Amino acid sequence: MTPTTKSFLSSRWVQAPEGIEELDPTELAPGFRAAGVAAGLKGNGGTDVGVLACNAENVRSALALTRNAAAAAPVRVCRDECDAAAIRAVAVNSGNANAATGEQGYRDALAMRDAAAEALGLEPANVAVAETGTIGVPLEIDAVVKGVGEAAEVASPVGGLEFALALMTTDRGPKQCTLRADGVTISAQAKGAGMIEPGFATMLCFLQTDGEIDDPDAVLRGALAGSMERITVDGQLSTNDMALLQATGDAGRPLPDGLLEAVLLQLALEIVADGEGATRVGRIEVADAASAEEAERVARAIANSPLVKTALFGRDSNWGRIAQASGQALAGEELTELGPDRIDASELASDSPEAELSVRLGRGDASAHVFFSDLTHDYIRINAEYTT
Amino acid sequence: MTPTTKSFLSSRWVQAPEGIEELDPTELAPGFRAAGVAAGLKGNGGTDVGVLACNAENVRSALALTRNAAAAAPVRVCRDECDAAAIRAVAVNSGNANAATGEQGYRDALAMRDAAAEALGLEPANVAVAETGTIGVPLEIDAVVKGVGEAAEVASPVGGLEFALALMTTDRGPKQCTLRADGVTISAQAKGAGMIEPGFATMLCFLQTDGEIDDPDAVLRGALAGSMERITVDGQLSTNDMALLQATGDAGRPLPDGLLEAVLLQLALEIVADGEGATRVGRIEVADAASAEEAERVARAIANSPLVKTALFGRDSNWGRIAQASGQALAGEELTELGPDRIDASELASDSPEAELSVRLGRGDASAHVFFSDLTHDYIRINAEYTT
Repeated sequence: MTPTTKSFLSSRWVQAPEGIEELDPTELAPGFRAAGVAAGLKGNGGTDVGVLACNAENVRSALALTRNAAAAAPVRVCRDECDAAAIRAVAVNSGNANAATGEQGYRDALAMRDAAAEALGLEPANVAVAETGTIGVPLEIDAVVKGVGEAAEVASPVGGLEFALALMTTDRGPKQCTLRADGVTISAQAKGAGMIEPGFATMLCFLQTDGEIDDPDAVLRGALAGSMERITVDGQLSTNDMALLQATGDAGRPLPDGLLEAVLLQLALEIVADGEGATRVGRIEVADAASAEEAERVARAIANSPLVKTALFGRDSNWGRIAQASGQALAGEELTELGPDRIDASELASDSPEAELSVRLGRGDASAHVFFSDLTHDYIRINAEYTT
Repeated sequence: MTPTTKSFLSSRWVQAPEGIEELDPTELAPGFRAAGVAAGLKGNGGTDVGVLACNAENVRSALALTRNAAAAAPVRVCRDECDAAAIRAVAVNSGNANAATGEQGYRDALAMRDAAAEALGLEPANVAVAETGTIGVPLEIDAVVKGVGEAAEVASPVGGLEFALALMTTDRGPKQCTLRADGVTISAQAKGAGMIEPGFATMLCFLQTDGEIDDPDAVLRGALAGSMERITVDGQLSTNDMALLQATGDAGRPLPDGLLEAVLLQLALEIVADGEGATRVGRIEVADAASAEEAERVARAIANSPLVKTALFGRDSNWGRIAQASGQALAGEELTELGPDRIDASELASDSPEAELSVRLGRGDASAHVFFSDLTHDYIRINAEYTT
């Protein structure tokens, strides 16, 4: 085994298991194949339609979907029409979210799913569909169906990068990895830049492994709770979020402890760091809260405060804004004054791209943390100038 | 009576009572005097300390204070030490919020209040204190006490402008008016630019009238509910918000119906329009909700969505972002798809500085509305570059 390298698991906040070997992320976990093609949805001719499939029939899977009540057509198709525990393949597109597109949108998502199933020779119920991009614009379904067919045809074990590219919207670059530890491989591809607030998947994220996973749904939800559920860019729960975990078990041994969690946390942090216009990531730890719910509520209020987010951008160790946001989250409650003895905001002003902040509420012994991006001129530019 | 003029009550959303005469806002309602001085708290030498007092002993008053659990020292002093129904005078300063300043901050707010009481010959319990500006910085109490004494000495019936200037922080200009109708006069001064989200007063606002008001507390809270409680700039509940209504009844007749409401709504809209970096104001009407609480929750989610706020700035009629925010507020609920038949976002793209938006949820017959500012480059600049 080659020595541990950590160019992917690079965040100060990610604890990687021992002995991880990092592979070329183009290479998928054994037993999977993928591809991405340019179908014309993106104005710039970029890769925008992809297919990822598992070769084995014995795949076990878990699917997490956004809780947004205005969920997009592909999310509703996955919810209503898919066997979440036995997903063999997924068809994706970027450039159009197929959200708020009415009954036609639902039919389009079904057609996209059916095209992938037919091209791959699978039952439709074993194929998921995921889309991301502009909301409220009819999907160019003919282009998508054609792209899905082409992608299915050229899908290969080294299609990881092309598939990751097919997910991207305002992302600065693809988010992906392939890691091996203890004889088990896991590969992952994710996207997410704006409209990011936990709730579930919070983005698109696909994970493939040849490791054995007894209860994929519990494992995925547990790992998401510590990663994708702990991040916010702009406090906005997307209409299209999805996370899909697929495991063949062909390696004959379990996924090493902590590996899925490390992969998802690093991807989550990359999503925050790549938040629309973001230049820095903060981690706020709320301690000594009266309950876990309270700690969470205060942490999210701080992480979503535009005043704290602009202070992170401006490198201003303005602990008063943390006090204000905490007080807002606890409106009407008794609270001993939050001064600099209880708030550590010094890293707001540090050179580090990852700033660790904390506040002790003095109300109990519960705690929670949230990762968040700063709020910058580029967030305004990206969201004011472009239709998303 | 001179003809109605409406240079103050100018918003499309404000319904003014008939026969309003607009006076020079420097002139206070009969029976009140005020002043503002430069005490050196603001680096630029601006007016930063003010005093406003009622000449009559028979004043009736109502005081509304922020619910922020990290309330500033002046708010706690008002809450703990003042007779809210019999406030004769208020001492104010801008440049320093005296928030998160510990026991010393509380002693400073008391000292400021006591200085005003002594200079005006009043009982301390009949004097309120209000501060706004930077959080977490010790108050220069000697300068403030000196300024309060000077302001009390020069306070006059035409001190409205100087008093309004003493409230300003990042406001572009003073927010004030003096209106007369049916033989009754009302004058008002307000400030507020960032850290604005309803909860109560949401800013500093002072209202004086010689009209008769039977139940000032009920009247003030009712009028705030339709005005200051309906606005948001950045979703942040301030540590220092306060609204003070004082009525002498010397006019011998009641305040005309709707006048206080019109004044407060216009001031609220000016606060939104002057939100940090704001260029436009939106009004979102959420109709056909299952309950008033639900309508309110959805309206606030839309009004505080940075995606909707940047669309308002960018004049992008992006109704999909209204659908997304609605769906987030209703996460986990059943919701018939929100398409362009249910969402009117066309005025996002209009030339108007006041854009009217609506969404019909199709879940019942409750409704609610919220006014909000856009999110612009200047919000980032103001809050990233300056310590507030």
